[in-house]
Amino acid sequence: MTNPTITRIKGDQALTFTSDITIHVLQDIELNSPILIEGLPGVGHVGKLVAEHLIDELHAERIIDIYSTHLPPQVIALEDSTVRLSRNELYAHHTENGDDLLILVGDYQSVTNEGHYILCDAFLDIAQQLDVSRIYTLGGYATYQLEDADSVVGAVNNPDLIEELSGYGVEFQENEPWGGIVGISGIMLAMSEARGIDAACLMGITSGYLVDPKSSQAVLRVLSQALGIEVDTQALDEHAAEMEKVVAKLQEMQQMQESMNRGDEDLRYIG
Amino acid sequence: MTNPTITRIKGDQALTFTSDITIHVLQDIELNSPILIEGLPGVGHVGKLVAEHLIDELHAERIIDIYSTHLPPQVIALEDSTVRLSRNELYAHHTENGDDLLILVGDYQSVTNEGHYILCDAFLDIAQQLDVSRIYTLGGYATYQLEDADSVVGAVNNPDLIEELSGYGVEFQENEPWGGIVGISGIMLAMSEARGIDAACLMGITSGYLVDPKSSQAVLRVLSQALGIEVDTQALDEHAAEMEKVVAKLQEMQQMQESMNRGDEDLRYIG
Amino acid sequence: MTNPTITRIKGDQALTFTSDITIHVLQDIELNSPILIEGLPGVGHVGKLVAEHLIDELHAERIIDIYSTHLPPQVIALEDSTVRLSRNELYAHHTENGDDLLILVGDYQSVTNEGHYILCDAFLDIAQQLDVSRIYTLGGYATYQLEDADSVVGAVNNPDLIEELSGYGVEFQENEPWGGIVGISGIMLAMSEARGIDAACLMGITSGYLVDPKSSQAVLRVLSQALGIEVDTQALDEHAAEMEKVVAKLQEMQQMQESMNRGDEDLRYIG
Amino acid sequence: MTNPTITRIKGDQALTFTSDITIHVLQDIELNSPILIEGLPGVGHVGKLVAEHLIDELHAERIIDIYSTHLPPQVIALEDSTVRLSRNELYAHHTENGDDLLILVGDYQSVTNEGHYILCDAFLDIAQQLDVSRIYTLGGYATYQLEDADSVVGAVNNPDLIEELSGYGVEFQENEPWGGIVGISGIMLAMSEARGIDAACLMGITSGYLVDPKSSQAVLRVLSQALGIEVDTQALDEHAAEMEKVVAKLQEMQQMQESMNRGDEDLRYIG
Repeated sequence: MTNPTITRIKGDQALTFTSDITIHVLQDIELNSPILIEGLPGVGHVGKLVAEHLIDELHAERIIDIYSTHLPPQVIALEDSTVRLSRNELYAHHTENGDDLLILVGDYQSVTNEGHYILCDAFLDIAQQLDVSRIYTLGGYATYQLEDADSVVGAVNNPDLIEELSGYGVEFQENEPWGGIVGISGIMLAMSEARGIDAACLMGITSGYLVDPKSSQAVLRVLSQALGIEVDTQALDEHAAEMEKVVAKLQEMQQMQESMNRGDEDLRYIG
Repeated sequence: MTNPTITRIKGDQALTFTSDITIHVLQDIELNSPILIEGLPGVGHVGKLVAEHLIDELHAERIIDIYSTHLPPQVIALEDSTVRLSRNELYAHHTENGDDLLILVGDYQSVTNEGHYILCDAFLDIAQQLDVSRIYTLGGYATYQLEDADSVVGAVNNPDLIEELSGYGVEFQENEPWGGIVGISGIMLAMSEARGIDAACLMGITSGYLVDPKSSQAVLRVLSQALGIEVDTQALDEHAAEMEKVVAKLQEMQQMQESMNRGDEDLRYIG
Repeated sequence: MTNPTITRIKGDQALTFTSDITIHVLQDIELNSPILIEGLPGVGHVGKLVAEHLIDELHAERIIDIYSTHLPPQVIALEDSTVRLSRNELYAHHTENGDDLLILVGDYQSVTNEGHYILCDAFLDIAQQLDVSRIYTLGGYATYQLEDADSVVGAVNNPDLIEELSGYGVEFQENEPWGGIVGISGIMLAMSEARGIDAACLMGITSGYLVDPKSSQAVLRVLSQALGIEVDTQALDEHAAEMEKVVAKLQEMQQMQESMNRGDEDLRYIG
Repeated sequence: MTNPTITRIKGDQALTFTSDITIHVLQDIELNSPILIEGLPGVGHVGKLVAEHLIDELHAERIIDIYSTHLPPQVIALEDSTVRLSRNELYAHHTENGDDLLILVGDYQSVTNEGHYILCDAFLDIAQQLDVSRIYTLGGYATYQLEDADSVVGAVNNPDLIEELSGYGVEFQENEPWGGIVGISGIMLAMSEARGIDAACLMGITSGYLVDPKSSQAVLRVLSQALGIEVDTQALDEHAAEMEKVVAKLQEMQQMQESMNRGDEDLRYIG
């Protein structure tokens, strides 16, 4: 039965973890019509890398932790050998020139079907309470080919956004992405539309086989323009450079494999 | 625990998506003892192709959207680069000569076990409210062989229907289909019987490996007679002609493979 | 959350199917301290074959149908081309010389984890209402070897039963079966103990790979003695004779395979 | 929906098994600020072997059984051919020199996602009622290599514990274990922190492929010191000696396999 239990806890109150969702408000904050950026783990971890990079570079502050019985029963080890329960986290950042930022990241998405719906609904409840003016959900769009792409495709919940985002280099194509968008980056678009919040999904083209910081660079480039902010990309660039070597190596191996297979086929035709 | 939460929303009311089932009534409509046709995705997408073809050809109107936390947390990309949440949809069509039509289609069936039961029950609640007089559930019957069949086998929830449907070319055999009918097309028969609504399942013979528009042609032929309507089948015919080429190619490959295997076996007997 | 919804329906009342469990009482019946025999599908379908054979030979009467959202959403095709929802069924049989019989059969066991517990609990509620004096759960004990065994191993919920059952040829060994008993045949023993009802599980030794009517013969032999009734076994004997041919064929193929493998190994040592 | 039903039963009261959790209190006991040791099944069964060894050597008394619809629907066969439902068990032991012990063992951990959370919460409710002063969760840390290691790595929910535990030979490394800790041993750390109970997880290094009594010896060595008790380790030593032979054999096979593979590769380069 879907009828979620949601518990709201503030500051030093003792946490409990047997509700569908436990929202732990670490600090109250005043924000100016913030823009919400969602970067939970997904295809190529493209969105996660961008969102975490933004949090690091902007020194955004963690304001809300979200625990859920729909997240894996797992703890994450920390630097000081303590642990914390797997969770989703909301960070806030005051910008100088206008719209503030909210950034949603986390260790995992829901592992149950209904969990995706009720977690997304809880995120949007928080978004509305904080007066969010627009949402960008970030993700990867898998082509299942090891290629060197740096384009970003988009989907929106309001066609009025297309012209603006095209100006930042986002590509829009009919009925794309072909297989739809699975998970939070997709359903947040549909579920925020029902609340009257404009939202766009920015997807970096990626193979789908590997963590892809290069695709994250492309998404960050678009997002920086959309947000009107400048972000140092050095950390992400270095990560991407390393990964490019891995990909080049894999492509080489793939070609060798293919030429060997071709050899086999020849034999078969002869034999 | 099975104790479904069902939310009913009308027209422009804001949608929420955390109930087991959210029924969004787009428009109220008066229908004359309508016949319900169910064509959700299933074996060979046979039923889905027929139902969508009918909607296109008859220009049926979408009257109800059904969302559910038991459907995949996924959005479908549309032509204008917007998205919509995966859902089931009910279309209506006024016919000139008597019984009106209701056509149930959708992106997916339930992904949870109990979801099948409670979604079917919700569909039948709607059917009863709209005074449905008969139900046809459409599907494919997998033979797991690449063959050129165009027959339609049937199952009913009332033996009185057999004679009529046999007249339209439906084949009825004892204890067929052997493995029963899995999913909505089957349980809707049993669950509508408990409500006193006559229902038949029309299954096109299909390999089960591929989307099968040819099998859909056969089902549409039977269904048109049963409904006493004429439907232009050109779009489906073209789709079937394309698919026939794919099947012919696959059969050729299969025969080559078999003759190669036979070769191997010969060697084995000799060696 | 586990907090099952159970609906009880009598005779011609309309059935609904969205409760965890729907108990449809077909006819009220007076029984004399009946013995309950459980033969739901399981390893080698050994228990199911025995229970269904008993129902056929004794002409037992179906008195209760049990539907559940924890059973597969599937219908079974019947001889007259109608269908019925997958379910569990309880049959009753008056014996001449004392204890009456209740026989529990069905198409499937629960497909969810909690479903096993709540269905078993519902079965035992019914058993207590009908004043059940003892329970035999029937099953197979997989050895994963194609062998010709006809022994029956037992487990009980009351050690006082061991001597009696040993007299009928049931073998009892410490900590056997090694991996415990999974599903209804096992948990019904534990859950009926908590209600003060004596119960034994009779498991025919079987390969675990195939439906095994031969193993069912062995279980039926024991059970007939335990119940003090005589049952014609011809139908089961014929089924077992057919299956023995299949097993002999498989054993032959296995030996050929093994000798071929040995051949390969020889080559490997030489090469 | 997560909203667990918990049933508490004392002594001879009849057990029911359809709640999320059924807590069967076998005997009331007075304990002196006990230390809780959790050793449920997990990686290499390292924790389970240690906890069961402690129960045997200390002749600890079983005081509470915990049943759950989130544990497998399965019974365990006992020596006297009776069975018991799969469950978790809490044992108590009075020590002479101060802190008493509580030891949590069982046949399985939860098989559902939410079950892990609500079972852990129920364990901690019991722990608080019994005034638990500290918790040690025991587990294995898989390296996926057949190696001869006897080190123990730790994680804590309070950094103040690190110095003390390091003194017993526990190794602490930044962000270790890399993949976090999955299941009860991990989440009990995080969930007891929220209740103000100090807890440490002691993980024996192990391959992850096999039951590993050798790794259990290492964990027991650390734990004995932490508890300030002496435990006869003979039974565990014998078990470890046997297992070492198995591992040596496997390593030998692995080396043979590797040298054969190397042979193949040479051929490939040449061919």
